[in-house]
Amino acid sequence: MPDPRHERIERTQAALAAAGTGALLLGPSSDLRWLLGYDPPPLERLTMLVVPAAGDVHLVVPVLEAPLAEEHLSDLGIKVLAWHETEDPVALVGASLAAAGAAGGELAVGDQLWASFLLRLQAALPAAAWRPGGTVTGPLRRRKDAAELDALTRAGAAIDTVIEQLGDLVAVGRSELEVAADLDRAIRAAGHERTNFTIVGSGPNGASPHHIAGPRRIQPGDAVVVDIGGRLDGYCSDTSRTVVVGEPDPAFVAMYELLKAAQEAGCQAVRPGVTAASVDAACREPITAAGYGERFLHRTGHGIGLDEHEDPYIVAGNEQPLEPGMAFSVEPGIYLAGRWGARIEDIVVCTEDGGRRLNSTGRDLVVIAP
Amino acid sequence: MPDPRHERIERTQAALAAAGTGALLLGPSSDLRWLLGYDPPPLERLTMLVVPAAGDVHLVVPVLEAPLAEEHLSDLGIKVLAWHETEDPVALVGASLAAAGAAGGELAVGDQLWASFLLRLQAALPAAAWRPGGTVTGPLRRRKDAAELDALTRAGAAIDTVIEQLGDLVAVGRSELEVAADLDRAIRAAGHERTNFTIVGSGPNGASPHHIAGPRRIQPGDAVVVDIGGRLDGYCSDTSRTVVVGEPDPAFVAMYELLKAAQEAGCQAVRPGVTAASVDAACREPITAAGYGERFLHRTGHGIGLDEHEDPYIVAGNEQPLEPGMAFSVEPGIYLAGRWGARIEDIVVCTEDGGRRLNSTGRDLVVIAP
Repeated sequence: MPDPRHERIERTQAALAAAGTGALLLGPSSDLRWLLGYDPPPLERLTMLVVPAAGDVHLVVPVLEAPLAEEHLSDLGIKVLAWHETEDPVALVGASLAAAGAAGGELAVGDQLWASFLLRLQAALPAAAWRPGGTVTGPLRRRKDAAELDALTRAGAAIDTVIEQLGDLVAVGRSELEVAADLDRAIRAAGHERTNFTIVGSGPNGASPHHIAGPRRIQPGDAVVVDIGGRLDGYCSDTSRTVVVGEPDPAFVAMYELLKAAQEAGCQAVRPGVTAASVDAACREPITAAGYGERFLHRTGHGIGLDEHEDPYIVAGNEQPLEPGMAFSVEPGIYLAGRWGARIEDIVVCTEDGGRRLNSTGRDLVVIAP
Repeated sequence: MPDPRHERIERTQAALAAAGTGALLLGPSSDLRWLLGYDPPPLERLTMLVVPAAGDVHLVVPVLEAPLAEEHLSDLGIKVLAWHETEDPVALVGASLAAAGAAGGELAVGDQLWASFLLRLQAALPAAAWRPGGTVTGPLRRRKDAAELDALTRAGAAIDTVIEQLGDLVAVGRSELEVAADLDRAIRAAGHERTNFTIVGSGPNGASPHHIAGPRRIQPGDAVVVDIGGRLDGYCSDTSRTVVVGEPDPAFVAMYELLKAAQEAGCQAVRPGVTAASVDAACREPITAAGYGERFLHRTGHGIGLDEHEDPYIVAGNEQPLEPGMAFSVEPGIYLAGRWGARIEDIVVCTEDGGRRLNSTGRDLVVIAP
């Protein structure tokens, strides 16, 4: 497989030139990983990639990380500019920009760069106007290439093997924390290099969409929302299932069936040319029609790739048309405060023929013997 | 033990008032954890604490995280302002600032806030001048209280139990990656809630201070630099030891003995009133005198607490006088490119009586049978 990095750098420079933006400045981030395959730690010592619209690309790094950087970038023709502990790295960034004729005008800065660095850049380059780098890289990253789709597919298959263990892990008397610790281990054992999150919301805690697993012990009849993800070969997995332990409340079963139909409607709406907002609407409509509109507290989904959350967001108002190669979650939820919650989530890839799910565990309500 | 959060908020507001800064704006970060004991995930959805110099403190959160936030903050008198997916959270921040009379003038923004959020804040508040929040919180956080020192002490004792396993983990024929994976497990087993990093640099890789463990297999005679840390009850551990597998090169032994003496000199220099720079100088002087000055590539150390790296930095030019309760690393290293490296690191707390090490594993050169 050809090294995609050269082409990604070229496309980034072309996008900058087309927009009249002088350069893109990136700290450690998924944008940097996408461009260079390099993942330095985000620290108080500045590491910054300077990608001018035209001219040489430079990487400014603390001297103690220069050996690693040289090793990663030797074949890319990127010059590494190392700074010593008592030097000012922002001056090196400024010199690199000046060499490319990009020290004034509009500059783009990585979305996830620390504010402390942006303030230093703004002070050093007072003539510049600043634009979020995601507006440059988002459109380039949101259509995944074949290798990226393969990585996302493998991540999806891996996280599904963890979901298949829920019948063993979720049980009356176990605490959310115990279940989450087991999920963490299982996510790694399934091949992820790291766990990104393990949401376990039991009973009324399931009504808090981003509940952090706590000491609550699972009770008979509880619905338990499990939302888990990790990173495998750089790409993220993310899936949610809701199970019931013991006899389910008939009202919960009815709500769950509605949710399952809504999730299916969202997935079925995916095809090239439809807008992200219309997928959100397709998923939301049956929930709203049943009177639960206010209880579906969040957007339908988010793009996924090197980041857990990235372009395209599946949300009202996002008129971005879907394109083949876009990958995102479809994850409606219904949350009744103080009572219970439910969420069903699959990662879906937009293909010429419609949506292709990367998660394939069952979506029928699973009832676990107490 | 009294809840320290009230007092921390009061001290922050007093510092803002004294500096004439209208408010401090914090995203998910160690500053937020320090102030609220609350640790939301850093995501593309804005969570922002608004701490005005005078007046009510507000937390702006995505509606799906509002239940968790309310639960954490109900006893602090902080009002939670929840925003829905199609609303603009920056407008809520602006309204909170306006209510406190702080929408113009100088504002401080958390060092680790994402640049994309700072750009939106700057666009919404064009009359404001911006200051890095670390200049407000750093001076408040760098002297640890008794509970924080206890947490750091426990984290240090935990990571030491991992260092004590090096004789079993480091062996000829094992890869750096295999050793790092075992260290990761051992760090968690020792009570850390997460591993922060596992540097294993064998042979020539030890000369790259931030080497990422790779496929290289340990050879007879290798020096192996191990630098590990994790987070335990919110506070970080960090220690480095260098071991040799098999017969050490006499030149390495001599260099190691010099390094050990330098690290001791750095630790001995710690006492209230001396500057951070003078500790760096005390540690660096014997290394420079022996002709290795250029090979000690980095500063002597960094503060540690909720962050792995924080104030005070033990570096030339930092004229900050040490005060009791400051905690930081003393970690000289000598790196000979292409040949080998060595580093010895302990966390040291400044007390009225001088430096107190939080790491107590041996610093004599450990030679592991091959």
